[in-house]
Amino acid sequence: MDTKTTNKHVVIVGGGFAGLGCARKLAKHDDVRVTLIDRHNYHQFQPLLYQLATSELGSGDVATSLRQSLRNHANVDVKMAEVMVADPRNRRVTTQDGQNYEGDFLVLAAGSQANFFHTKGAEQNSFPLYSLEEAERLRSRVLAVFEDADRDSRVIEKGALNFVIIGGGPTGTELAGALADMINLTMTGEYPDLAVKRAQVHLVDHGSTLLAPFSAEAHEYAARTLRRKGVRLLLGQSVTEVTPDHVQLSDGTAIPTRTVVWAGGLMASPLADNSGLPRGHGGRIQVEPDLTVAGFAGVYALGDFANIPGADGRPLPQLASVAQQCGVWTAKNILAEIAGRPRTAFHYHDKGFMAMIGRDAAVAEIGNKRHELEGPIAFAAWLGVHLLLMSGVRERIEAFIDWAWDYFSKTRPIQVLDRSDENRIDWGEHTERTVTH
Amino acid sequence: MDTKTTNKHVVIVGGGFAGLGCARKLAKHDDVRVTLIDRHNYHQFQPLLYQLATSELGSGDVATSLRQSLRNHANVDVKMAEVMVADPRNRRVTTQDGQNYEGDFLVLAAGSQANFFHTKGAEQNSFPLYSLEEAERLRSRVLAVFEDADRDSRVIEKGALNFVIIGGGPTGTELAGALADMINLTMTGEYPDLAVKRAQVHLVDHGSTLLAPFSAEAHEYAARTLRRKGVRLLLGQSVTEVTPDHVQLSDGTAIPTRTVVWAGGLMASPLADNSGLPRGHGGRIQVEPDLTVAGFAGVYALGDFANIPGADGRPLPQLASVAQQCGVWTAKNILAEIAGRPRTAFHYHDKGFMAMIGRDAAVAEIGNKRHELEGPIAFAAWLGVHLLLMSGVRERIEAFIDWAWDYFSKTRPIQVLDRSDENRIDWGEHTERTVTH
Repeated sequence: MDTKTTNKHVVIVGGGFAGLGCARKLAKHDDVRVTLIDRHNYHQFQPLLYQLATSELGSGDVATSLRQSLRNHANVDVKMAEVMVADPRNRRVTTQDGQNYEGDFLVLAAGSQANFFHTKGAEQNSFPLYSLEEAERLRSRVLAVFEDADRDSRVIEKGALNFVIIGGGPTGTELAGALADMINLTMTGEYPDLAVKRAQVHLVDHGSTLLAPFSAEAHEYAARTLRRKGVRLLLGQSVTEVTPDHVQLSDGTAIPTRTVVWAGGLMASPLADNSGLPRGHGGRIQVEPDLTVAGFAGVYALGDFANIPGADGRPLPQLASVAQQCGVWTAKNILAEIAGRPRTAFHYHDKGFMAMIGRDAAVAEIGNKRHELEGPIAFAAWLGVHLLLMSGVRERIEAFIDWAWDYFSKTRPIQVLDRSDENRIDWGEHTERTVTH
Repeated sequence: MDTKTTNKHVVIVGGGFAGLGCARKLAKHDDVRVTLIDRHNYHQFQPLLYQLATSELGSGDVATSLRQSLRNHANVDVKMAEVMVADPRNRRVTTQDGQNYEGDFLVLAAGSQANFFHTKGAEQNSFPLYSLEEAERLRSRVLAVFEDADRDSRVIEKGALNFVIIGGGPTGTELAGALADMINLTMTGEYPDLAVKRAQVHLVDHGSTLLAPFSAEAHEYAARTLRRKGVRLLLGQSVTEVTPDHVQLSDGTAIPTRTVVWAGGLMASPLADNSGLPRGHGGRIQVEPDLTVAGFAGVYALGDFANIPGADGRPLPQLASVAQQCGVWTAKNILAEIAGRPRTAFHYHDKGFMAMIGRDAAVAEIGNKRHELEGPIAFAAWLGVHLLLMSGVRERIEAFIDWAWDYFSKTRPIQVLDRSDENRIDWGEHTERTVTH
């Protein structure tokens, strides 16, 4: 068709907050064609994956189909494919099955993966928490070790009920709080036979504080709240090795466990290696203030995939709100380029930060103000923030019901142990025994 | 404890409609102790699994945690374990990890598995639809072939968009209707680039009718409705072989496909083989009218695991309502035995039958009355029936929202392709190509 050949074509790699934000903005302009490529068919709501892992939310609450989100826009085409190589000179990418996609503009928002910092055994023996599938796997593992311990309490000696979280950033801190609540409020009621009080959440960080980027008061508050919930904080310690049955710490101690969560840092996804673009900290693409890559006309990099300069020159943190805003900004700059107007430097509008530590405690920093919230008001504030961020009306309604249900009933809506093949844990030798009560 | 040793102990194998029905009834009697053993930690709502497979419902809508369901009953203990052997003389079962559970009563409600009737390749190359995990796998496969075809339309020639359902009972018929609706109403809007009209649902049955146990009018109605939705009916045909890339029919034709659903029949789960109990049709345990097994004091078999004599002497069909009712009846008979009263013969209260054929057509037979419903009223009636059957309040609310959303919006709430490892389909050789539009 005529319009197909004359309209500018934008190829976007990645359907996360950055890529989807860009696609949605461009979708409203019929004179632009967009191809959005992601290796999954869904957009995932990464800040809530820890709730999937603790049986509070289901997959449908934290993932929405990209095709559904964009189905009313004839100028946007979604392709599910894994992009392996980028050729930024020609604004072309090549997928795993050998297809090439070429545009007038190339937007790289390919996201992150866990950065294990060469920690021995970590990649093989820990659960990262950055993708939907990783969160589903962690959920089933948490449930599996409780079931195994309930069936045979001898495995508790082997660390069945030790949960070790590596990394005290927002993901690690929120997960520690949610896991502690799950143990204290849900599991105690559901496993009357089991000594649930022997379950222990360990949170390890090599720094001296939790939630490092935030204020000293926020550090203190998070630590105090987690300790009150029974979480064991191992600060100023690093992990030297993760094995199939224990974690080795830098002070020489070992924690026996089958559930190690890696929340210890992110690096750019492997596409960065195969892009020929300049890279910086965390392997992320170095971009100009306007989100373009110097020397490559029509190429943008954004979200967790890029080091985006903030107002003070330092890179902005890897946050959903940064990613979403720079996606929209990129769309505006592309539209400006097409119209022959100049691009503008990205300005991040910081709406603040909020972390939920279990169901009844939250810390928020908005502007220069810090708020420590306890009890139902913490839950309500947090609920409001996340319902506003979630994209779909149905997701909002259902997540609201799941959360409200969970909050008031102390049960877990999505307590489903699937992937049972992955959770036949070898606990070593035991003698047979008969249970007659 | 004193009460622990004097109270009668009931061991129930299986947390389906039969086993859970029995456990719930016994839970109200503090002088009985119950151990409920299931290989999963959840009860699954089997009649709705086809909706999980077609992205209409999420896992949390069709599965509820057994521990959650029974958490308020201190006299019921849940164990997640796979029972391998039953010793009915001693009312003892042995689990995969070598533990034994022994009771004063043994209730075997271990359910069914697909019966492939020795069809060549069927077990290796088809998707059964009897468990939650099977439904999750099928969902991801259905989404994966659409994505593959969208990326490269040449795979359509290789059968990517052929969906072959084997078996025209309620599961096969309902799935065919739901899949046809998904293609016609959802996929056409979401894959603008793809010739979705080339997608074809094939429903194969060796008999001459669909929904065989019901009236001739119901057969006709189901066939007419499915044909109107574009389903190709292959009645009076049997499947001679299922290979990784096609289905071979008895008339010599072959259908190329990567998505074969086995809804062709059930047989008792493997425990029946290892129980030493008398077996009949489908390998199911033969039981007396009071649901006990002749010659084995204190042993009951029920649900899909047993051939249960109906009023006319013929076995009752494998239906959720039969299973649920005989679970409650078994509990009553056990309580009678404990109290020294006689057991009574199970009486099935037939509340009728209902099948939903896509979102806008249903056929119901209640008593001698047949109802054919079209449009929103069909959906409403079906909705009401299933909401009444579902166990939890939260599940009901959320399933209601999912369904209502789906009905009015033509999108699919849970369109999530996970398990991507299982869905890297080998389509054979293709040449590379560049897509620039």
